Amino acid sequence: MANVSNTSTGKGRVVIIGGNAAGMSAASKIRREQPERDILVLEKTAYTSYSNCGIPYFIGGMIKEVDRLVVRSPEEFREKYNIDVRTGHEVIEIDLGAQRVKVQEREAARVTEESYDQLLIATGARPFCPQVEGMDAAGIFGLSGLASGINIQEFLTNKSPQNVVVVGGGYIGLEMAEALTRLKLNVSLVQKSPEVMDTLDPDMGALVSQALRGIGVKLFLSEGFEAFEVKEGRVTGVVTPERTLPADMVILGLGVRANSHLAKAAGIELGPRGAISVDGRMQTSTANVWAAGDCAASLHRVTGQPVHIALGTIANKQGLVAGTNISGGQGWFPGVVGTAVSKICAVEVARTGLQEKELQQLGTDYATATIKTRTRAGYYPGSGTITVKLLGEKGSGLLLGAQIVGMEGAAKRIDIIATALTAEMTAEDLIGLDLSYAPPFSPVWDPVQTAARQLIKKL
Amino acid sequence: MANVSNTSTGKGRVVIIGGNAAGMSAASKIRREQPERDILVLEKTAYTSYSNCGIPYFIGGMIKEVDRLVVRSPEEFREKYNIDVRTGHEVIEIDLGAQRVKVQEREAARVTEESYDQLLIATGARPFCPQVEGMDAAGIFGLSGLASGINIQEFLTNKSPQNVVVVGGGYIGLEMAEALTRLKLNVSLVQKSPEVMDTLDPDMGALVSQALRGIGVKLFLSEGFEAFEVKEGRVTGVVTPERTLPADMVILGLGVRANSHLAKAAGIELGPRGAISVDGRMQTSTANVWAAGDCAASLHRVTGQPVHIALGTIANKQGLVAGTNISGGQGWFPGVVGTAVSKICAVEVARTGLQEKELQQLGTDYATATIKTRTRAGYYPGSGTITVKLLGEKGSGLLLGAQIVGMEGAAKRIDIIATALTAEMTAEDLIGLDLSYAPPFSPVWDPVQTAARQLIKKL
Repeated sequence: MANVSNTSTGKGRVVIIGGNAAGMSAASKIRREQPERDILVLEKTAYTSYSNCGIPYFIGGMIKEVDRLVVRSPEEFREKYNIDVRTGHEVIEIDLGAQRVKVQEREAARVTEESYDQLLIATGARPFCPQVEGMDAAGIFGLSGLASGINIQEFLTNKSPQNVVVVGGGYIGLEMAEALTRLKLNVSLVQKSPEVMDTLDPDMGALVSQALRGIGVKLFLSEGFEAFEVKEGRVTGVVTPERTLPADMVILGLGVRANSHLAKAAGIELGPRGAISVDGRMQTSTANVWAAGDCAASLHRVTGQPVHIALGTIANKQGLVAGTNISGGQGWFPGVVGTAVSKICAVEVARTGLQEKELQQLGTDYATATIKTRTRAGYYPGSGTITVKLLGEKGSGLLLGAQIVGMEGAAKRIDIIATALTAEMTAEDLIGLDLSYAPPFSPVWDPVQTAARQLIKKL
Repeated sequence: MANVSNTSTGKGRVVIIGGNAAGMSAASKIRREQPERDILVLEKTAYTSYSNCGIPYFIGGMIKEVDRLVVRSPEEFREKYNIDVRTGHEVIEIDLGAQRVKVQEREAARVTEESYDQLLIATGARPFCPQVEGMDAAGIFGLSGLASGINIQEFLTNKSPQNVVVVGGGYIGLEMAEALTRLKLNVSLVQKSPEVMDTLDPDMGALVSQALRGIGVKLFLSEGFEAFEVKEGRVTGVVTPERTLPADMVILGLGVRANSHLAKAAGIELGPRGAISVDGRMQTSTANVWAAGDCAASLHRVTGQPVHIALGTIANKQGLVAGTNISGGQGWFPGVVGTAVSKICAVEVARTGLQEKELQQLGTDYATATIKTRTRAGYYPGSGTITVKLLGEKGSGLLLGAQIVGMEGAAKRIDIIATALTAEMTAEDLIGLDLSYAPPFSPVWDPVQTAARQLIKKL
């Protein structure tokens, strides 16, 4: 992407489209650096700064009040931070030449215009919905912001569905499947690949599939879905090539796509999977226009290629970097290594780096090692199983990725590998690390090092 | 230390002095590499390969059978691994010129000699016992191997002590204090420094002191101990400058010293605090003589200086490296960064790198940042407090160390910093790491990154 010069990052009016993680991280950073800067945030929904990731726990009843998911309300931003946050304001067009945005005000039903000196696009992502028959029926939900969580909860309360089908077995699909089993519903899950969670290799995904069956989720694997069966405008079934699953509620867990239509229409360059292309400063292809969060691409530090990964951590970091630069400082987002973590009842799941299918696509000469051991010293109460799969490059010995499935205390170990990948460590470097050990925390060789001791024999 | 050439590492007879973590790691590695190699292990006690770190949990009743602490018995090594392990055999002299060791056989009460081509000294460490009045009284125990754990448990059973004083507030002292409160004894702890656990800075140590008081341990801080009060050969009190604490049992927790007297007597070079000097291959100053484990020094990767840190993880790694080299391979122990972890009831404690007093001694221009946040998303059930202190170098921004005190899930985060220290990362690098996030595991900014965001302002 061409390097674009900005005339005056440190002054003038800032307009931010989107008031969640990335947008409000940027707004807060700018306010801390520049107490007098004119900052306008335009948010189409009624909410700001909430935890998307917490929604499944709200639906599952582990969190009673939806307000607990809100980190800061629009009022707080206005009153405590002097940030002009306008909810119910949807930007419908960006005019790059005039440096203006066109805004649809929901309540007043009118369109106004706002000018900017610096524009941050932080429009997030939306659930991927394939265009199939019955898509618009009542009872079909994607997880897209706090409002969708409230809608799902109201539907559960008012319509008392019994048979829920989750379509797609990624993080959100699985966390929702767990939440719905907590409510004692009949939960089925349809997934096109041979195991759930295809960001893991199938051998590791199989452990997660097994955990889901253990909590009563019926899995229909290697089974795409074709259409929804609808009666009187309400969903009644999910149609696959093999069968029709009865469903009075459907949750879409097919991943997300960047909300980049505004940027695209304005002529801003897009990157992988339609995410907005940015450099390490979070600048787009256009002067004075920035992007951050689930709508933006990231550099993958292992491959060196841009990727689109929509996660709250990344959105917060990118927002902070964008805010730093917009307020005249020097911020740099170094990229991602593909780290993610989830918990399905008692089973913890984590991954980082590249998985086998990615390495095969890249033509990398790699080896893998998978070990099963204990989360704590074997004799220590509460010790559980942990399976670690490590991937490394033959010849160089460089680490390429890791996947972990195990009981309490297993998953956060992925951060060791995420850090090691960033530092371009080899399997031998990993074995040499001075990691912490005491019986309540680990066997004397940390499981990631035990895996590295196996891996090194194959590299 | 001079580089010493070995004539023939891959062949001849290997004699190993000491059959615990380092010695048996080396023996097992040599056997895997060389199925026919002549390996003799001389162990003065009746036990091999046990977990020293598990002893407090055995004494506290969390582990019922002492056998559970034994990883592999002498019989197993003899029968399954064909390693000639002789227990009750104490080496009393090393003759470097003749390449022989003199052995005192406990049961036969005779002294024999064994010759070696390669000798590994893995004699471990012993609790530090200051030479004060009353030191030899019954009822005073250091933690030194499985036998000492069994002795303590028998004393507890047979003598039913009520008032126990722990002298010294390091890891072993604190873990023993916790174990003894589990048995409903009156436990006092005497510590010379202003807070327990002086491998932490006092501000962080204060959190641990507080946790100990919370489980009913009476703390006498900034109070050295001077002598033991003894009646009829049994300890009855611990004398400090301020008072005499009644005690029918005393646990020494004053740290350990390397068991290096054999090496010293033979003229082998010693290093910090009397630990045996070794290079990265675990070779001593003498050809064909190696050392590993609690008796040996390590390179500190942050200071570049040798240190003596006696921990099971280090012993296992050093043993593996020594075994690799003795069997003719190329092993290298890269050193340590000072990582340690412990759990005092519900409170997890971890540290790595350098602490303030070390940095002051080195004359390093450093800054610190301490933050208090949550172990999980604030709204997620079971979220607890975590305090993270980070230390970094002014100017360069390099990380220098970290200390963590917090509830479940807090401490293992120290491994992120241990890895970052090894990779010589800056605070800014730490902020940029792609660490895992989901509500059950972490706030959206991992606490170590929140600390780094504070630290960076001061560097």
